[in-house]
Amino acid sequence: MNNYTFINGGVTSPMGFTANGVCAGVKAATSAAITKAIAANDSPVIPNGKRDLALIACDRVCNAAAIFTKNLVKSDTIFVTQKHLQNGRAQAVIVNSGNANACNPDGYEKAEAMGRLAADALGIDENDMIVASTGVIGQPLPLAPIESGVAALKDILSKEGGSNAAEAIMTTDTVKKEWAVQTVIGGKTVTIGGIAKGSGMIHINMGTTLSFVTTDAAISSEMLKAALIEAADVSYNMVSVDGDTSTNDTLAILASGYAGNTEITEKNEDYYIFLEALTAAFKAVAKKLAADGEGATKLLICKVSGAKDEQAAKIIAKSVICSSLVKAAMFGADANCGRVLCAIGYSGAQVDDVKKIDVSYSSAAGEILVCQNGCGLAFDEDKAEKILLENEITIIITLADGNGEAEAYGCDLTYDYVKINGDYRT
Amino acid sequence: MNNYTFINGGVTSPMGFTANGVCAGVKAATSAAITKAIAANDSPVIPNGKRDLALIACDRVCNAAAIFTKNLVKSDTIFVTQKHLQNGRAQAVIVNSGNANACNPDGYEKAEAMGRLAADALGIDENDMIVASTGVIGQPLPLAPIESGVAALKDILSKEGGSNAAEAIMTTDTVKKEWAVQTVIGGKTVTIGGIAKGSGMIHINMGTTLSFVTTDAAISSEMLKAALIEAADVSYNMVSVDGDTSTNDTLAILASGYAGNTEITEKNEDYYIFLEALTAAFKAVAKKLAADGEGATKLLICKVSGAKDEQAAKIIAKSVICSSLVKAAMFGADANCGRVLCAIGYSGAQVDDVKKIDVSYSSAAGEILVCQNGCGLAFDEDKAEKILLENEITIIITLADGNGEAEAYGCDLTYDYVKINGDYRT
Repeated sequence: MNNYTFINGGVTSPMGFTANGVCAGVKAATSAAITKAIAANDSPVIPNGKRDLALIACDRVCNAAAIFTKNLVKSDTIFVTQKHLQNGRAQAVIVNSGNANACNPDGYEKAEAMGRLAADALGIDENDMIVASTGVIGQPLPLAPIESGVAALKDILSKEGGSNAAEAIMTTDTVKKEWAVQTVIGGKTVTIGGIAKGSGMIHINMGTTLSFVTTDAAISSEMLKAALIEAADVSYNMVSVDGDTSTNDTLAILASGYAGNTEITEKNEDYYIFLEALTAAFKAVAKKLAADGEGATKLLICKVSGAKDEQAAKIIAKSVICSSLVKAAMFGADANCGRVLCAIGYSGAQVDDVKKIDVSYSSAAGEILVCQNGCGLAFDEDKAEKILLENEITIIITLADGNGEAEAYGCDLTYDYVKINGDYRT
Repeated sequence: MNNYTFINGGVTSPMGFTANGVCAGVKAATSAAITKAIAANDSPVIPNGKRDLALIACDRVCNAAAIFTKNLVKSDTIFVTQKHLQNGRAQAVIVNSGNANACNPDGYEKAEAMGRLAADALGIDENDMIVASTGVIGQPLPLAPIESGVAALKDILSKEGGSNAAEAIMTTDTVKKEWAVQTVIGGKTVTIGGIAKGSGMIHINMGTTLSFVTTDAAISSEMLKAALIEAADVSYNMVSVDGDTSTNDTLAILASGYAGNTEITEKNEDYYIFLEALTAAFKAVAKKLAADGEGATKLLICKVSGAKDEQAAKIIAKSVICSSLVKAAMFGADANCGRVLCAIGYSGAQVDDVKKIDVSYSSAAGEILVCQNGCGLAFDEDKAEKILLENEITIIITLADGNGEAEAYGCDLTYDYVKINGDYRT
């Protein structure tokens, strides 16, 4: 039985948090026009404009932690956020889409300025700001729209605004990702909520570009960091859309403590209850990110069991989910087991006996064994096609090497992935 | 000045070798009908049929060597060929397309039988056969078409048949790949020729599925193996189409010795002349394989210099050439430098200072600097587009870490790649 329940909600569900998102015109070079439009319409949202600036704030300083991309080329927002989180505290998040503020000569100064603008508007310490950006790399970040956007945002922060914040961090995402989950810790109801964005440049090791999580649990920043790492390891770190790791990946969490539970400061029972809820939520987000991968028509889940150990199982699951050939075959509903076996073989994981690998495909339409003992089977092609025409496919790999298990998440490779990325900047 | 000259020719250019290729009907389940058609037409080629069986033979036993896929899941043909090459000798190559004979319960027996059929037809020792297959994985190899095909082939082996052999090993290749190069060793003209096939499931570490090389040089099998490894390291091992390493990759070489040079048995001056010609040929093939990558419209070359060392340069060049986002941007002629920087950053190579990376794009239409000192530049988009609309693009990356240089070969990611692989088996 699970100790948690998913509820409708998002980043503002936990006590103490408000948020909103507006169209500030970061991407458009038309920030002045947009500012005027905002004034004229008495609305922070440009008619038909895409929201591109989000502010999430707590009414008090929170314990906080974050983990970041492993890419050596990092957006300067990451260095600013790392500096601000050195004391394990934060109170608000300012984040834009449309421009990654990466590979710019003045990126650091602008990321600091962005944080300062938000902090000043909120009347809080600029060192308590988490700053993030996502979008095109290598183009100067325009500060004017961020300034006018922040001015608009500070007056409309609300519980209801959480969804707008989720929308404002979307880039090529087709659906916004927000979630909330509740659990009980020491007799107190604890809520965790979050928003996330995909959907390209997504790979193992922080398989997201941005995700912001809030909670009203009382928990130390050290334990927040530990829980983030453990939960991300089996969720965000097991998602791949295209094998490209972004320069901006940031997964941050803020804990207001309003739930009133005894503060979690060590890996006790309360920590594991919190971790269980956080992990379940992250796994659900990982699936959403994969399903909304650029151009994707199908969520692919690769379940590996019987591997030598968990590490081998993870390597195999990731290799299969990352294979362009597997991904293209799934797009075409082609039950080609050769591509799966091939991806297992070049994964780099130790496999004691490739002649003991079984492979099945499973979906809402049924399950079919296509490979037994390392050999392709003659199977019912019609049944296989029916299974693979569903929009959520599980590739089940069973080895006979040990007890290692793992699950990875990906999507099919489609014409639209090529289309989206053939001309991303325009 | 180069010590070698490319000439028109192929696998039969070196003295002693003949070859041919026919449509044996390996892929079609219609082998009996095809055998009949062959008899009826008095022709080994089915009208409109795709050639799918090649035989290459020497009139004497050769010194020989081969290197193979690193995939743990291997076609049984590889184990048979490895066994036959234990003595460093071979006389002929039998190879089919349309079926990989991989992941089959009876694959080993069938690979042996395939070699025996060819050896019997040629009247040579079956242990002197190199056996190879390429095509769909996990489907039983039909021996009947191979038997009738071999019977047809043995009577039509010729110098002119080399091109048919090149054609017969093609799968999704759109052009056949054959080449010949001449050099002078110890006053004697030495010829090296070869055929190769791509064009999907191609990745670093034997970036080909099959390649067969012949030479009339006198060279020991040990030195052949050493030269194969050295030449492949900067050519086949630097090609990627889709990041998938095949189960069947085989690069084999046979040396007849007819050129009459003093046999090369150590890494002397003669060895390095031979290696220079072999390497030049392999690099040319690597580019052909990349340019004919599945669905490709453009050859991409990534040239890295100034890396910490050669190893770092190789890792960076490969990472960029493998990036789905870089590949899709090149398809769309989008001069996005962010994707290149991003791929450098996650390559895993040590980069001392990411703020000292320069990136340019170059083609027949000119050259343009898009990133300087790790930062995106404002550049002439029209000029950039003109450069990227060419069908051979070089991505030039300059670091300031050391003297490491490398070159990798790839292609763009296109709608057609997805189309070809969405339904490969039908």
